[in-house]
Amino acid sequence: MSPSANYPSKALQEAVEAISSLPGVGSRSALRLALHLLRQPAEKIHHFAAAVDNLAEGVQYCRTCNMVSDGEQCSICADSRRDHDTICVVESVRDVMSIEATGQYRGVYHVLGGIISPINGTGPSDLSIGALAKRARPGVEIILALPGDVEGETTSFYIYRQIEESGCKVSTLARGLGFGDNLEYADSLTLGRSIINRQPFHVDK
Amino acid sequence: MSPSANYPSKALQEAVEAISSLPGVGSRSALRLALHLLRQPAEKIHHFAAAVDNLAEGVQYCRTCNMVSDGEQCSICADSRRDHDTICVVESVRDVMSIEATGQYRGVYHVLGGIISPINGTGPSDLSIGALAKRARPGVEIILALPGDVEGETTSFYIYRQIEESGCKVSTLARGLGFGDNLEYADSLTLGRSIINRQPFHVDK
Repeated sequence: MSPSANYPSKALQEAVEAISSLPGVGSRSALRLALHLLRQPAEKIHHFAAAVDNLAEGVQYCRTCNMVSDGEQCSICADSRRDHDTICVVESVRDVMSIEATGQYRGVYHVLGGIISPINGTGPSDLSIGALAKRARPGVEIILALPGDVEGETTSFYIYRQIEESGCKVSTLARGLGFGDNLEYADSLTLGRSIINRQPFHVDK
Repeated sequence: MSPSANYPSKALQEAVEAISSLPGVGSRSALRLALHLLRQPAEKIHHFAAAVDNLAEGVQYCRTCNMVSDGEQCSICADSRRDHDTICVVESVRDVMSIEATGQYRGVYHVLGGIISPINGTGPSDLSIGALAKRARPGVEIILALPGDVEGETTSFYIYRQIEESGCKVSTLARGLGFGDNLEYADSLTLGRSIINRQPFHVDK
């Protein structure tokens, strides 16, 4: 079936067009999903639509860290047991959820909402860098946990220049071979950096 | 991120749960899609939700052939230039669109709405077989274009038994090697059937 196929119903066509506007969903998949929904009872379709519709007004952003939230403060910033002097800077909400899922981090976050990307037209003023700079002060550690590509490095460097005089400590994620990785299959850039950034051998006693 | 991750917002969680109820969409993909929608302007989210919501009431089914339609009669059944004495029986709406996209068929359709499948609890009474039997009469050709698996064959056979005494002609799709297929890579069942069902060699003069 070609994407330009004539749809037998305008309502079906509009639903397929809406669904295929999602990233990574082609017109064939969109048709399959729309026909799946069409086979569901009406109340299930309404429930689905209402859940999506509610994204527009039901989701708020934390005033401190820019994380999606149910109110003005997210559950992480509201948690007094967390270390509010350690701030992990990430690109997106998804990164917060990935780090939270590790269970290894007890600090708080700062969600930039993107990274500096001239190609995509994203400049520093589109990101919550100003708000981050206000959180930087002596005694605070800021962990730059941005992507390892050129845009991520550029953004990390830009942020570093904005906060270096605040007196805060700035760190970044450890990079190297993954735990359990075999040297044979590692890319040479990662392997080379892993040798240069070698760590003292550690024995638990 | 594990599927059981704590979502930072209830509205986000509900949208992810709704999206991940779609076939072939896992919780990671659903989160990615929900966050994509969340980044869109509110009116775009509302448009998306409304297009899906409208599936529940905006789509009708043709009274003749059971195809999805904008009214009581689909555009194919309403088209007087089509051959209304040739009826192609298919499992689903998608099959009609696939055949229409070939541009090779000028007859009409009959959409069963499924195939007989004891495992899925689909019996003959769940399908529009009774309505099809009413369309079968002398002078009509019914083309059984159902899947080539056991359930499709079972359904074809069941339909054949329901319509064989009506005096209509019953045919089925040609099956064999695909055009351009290489013998080396064909499955042996298809190759064997292609030899048994061999056709007279045809030369255009």
